Amino acid sequence: MTAPLRLFELVLADGRSASPYVWRIRYALAHKGLPFESVPVGFTDIPGIGGGRFKTVPILEHGTTMLAESWDIAAYLDATFQARPLFSAPAEVAMVRLFESWLLTEIVRRIVGIYLLDVHDAARPADRAYFRQSREARFSGKRLEEIVAGREQRLPALRETFAPMRLHLAKSRFLGGDTPNYADYIALGTFQWIASVGTLPLLARDDAVLHAWLERGLALPGGDGADPRLRPLFG
Amino acid sequence: MTAPLRLFELVLADGRSASPYVWRIRYALAHKGLPFESVPVGFTDIPGIGGGRFKTVPILEHGTTMLAESWDIAAYLDATFQARPLFSAPAEVAMVRLFESWLLTEIVRRIVGIYLLDVHDAARPADRAYFRQSREARFSGKRLEEIVAGREQRLPALRETFAPMRLHLAKSRFLGGDTPNYADYIALGTFQWIASVGTLPLLARDDAVLHAWLERGLALPGGDGADPRLRPLFG
Repeated sequence: MTAPLRLFELVLADGRSASPYVWRIRYALAHKGLPFESVPVGFTDIPGIGGGRFKTVPILEHGTTMLAESWDIAAYLDATFQARPLFSAPAEVAMVRLFESWLLTEIVRRIVGIYLLDVHDAARPADRAYFRQSREARFSGKRLEEIVAGREQRLPALRETFAPMRLHLAKSRFLGGDTPNYADYIALGTFQWIASVGTLPLLARDDAVLHAWLERGLALPGGDGADPRLRPLFG
Repeated sequence: MTAPLRLFELVLADGRSASPYVWRIRYALAHKGLPFESVPVGFTDIPGIGGGRFKTVPILEHGTTMLAESWDIAAYLDATFQARPLFSAPAEVAMVRLFESWLLTEIVRRIVGIYLLDVHDAARPADRAYFRQSREARFSGKRLEEIVAGREQRLPALRETFAPMRLHLAKSRFLGGDTPNYADYIALGTFQWIASVGTLPLLARDDAVLHAWLERGLALPGGDGADPRLRPLFG
């Protein structure tokens, strides 16, 4: 009998899990069939967890082990619970990391310029001042309102940037092939994040290939597909 | 004793192998340690191979088997010669195909608008009329010279588009991890193609991460690293 798993996850004012990195681990735990206890925290609670040694969520607690960083947590889960592995081989890990590099440089960069104020507005009231201060500092003091100004004009470019996923998913049920892999969980985590906070639909209504994949992704274990708050995602 | 392998490959006026899809298979054959006989052909020779049933190179002949399409050839090689597999698992195949979708939609599209006339000029004289006609037809009759007009202004955007590879390769020797995988061979094939024809350097001189990866890729079996004609690639 192994110790229970506890997942510290960022929650918004409405109680929904927000961090795209936490969503990856929610999917990963479900993929492996591992139940866990959710420990909801706000942005400003993170320094108080584990004696102050963590700066980000997710944080996983398993018996006397506590660790952060979603890639480290995924590796820990595969090493500790060997059934239903997340990764088939080191080359698959490398390829998923390459996909993540694309997502960060091309998609998330554009998402931030469109949704950053939405993240602020959806945060717990107690977290908003910290969120504003820390994020504006990353943009040389530019206000959140200025960062997202004119965002409707930038939305088409963001949507267009999904072209590689569209081309792939026109021929494949999941990014990982016939069944989802960690690349799907990474991408779905990003959509779940925006679904939780966004006040502009991330995808156009006629984006059939991505919508079909998203429906499959929300229906997966860990995908929380029935949550009606996800609907704004679909335009 | 198995039948010899023959690889039909597109050659330029200078005799160098040109097609990025052929380069993938050159790398794949070397990866698997399989010697092969090269059968050089020009664009206009392809309809005469195998009774006219092929439209593209590479074409692989192995005993009584002849097949085209680089993905089919790669699968055939792994099925027929099981040592040194190209792929570890179906999820790796899916991830490499996703990478290829990125390369096609983001990189190759931009490459064509910059290097299409160079491909024409490097082709065997006998192939140039066919090449011009077939490619201009794909651009609604626009002349090759018009397609590439102003290309110097578009080169910075092409170089910038490699950002996901740069981020990944800053932490990884190859796209596939510590050792190269088929994603490396696909990307290297694209660089080999432009190296064979390009009259503008694809990369800026100070693009250290990509240059280091390219040097490793040219030094791989199948990479033909010593060919001095590759130098223009490096700016």
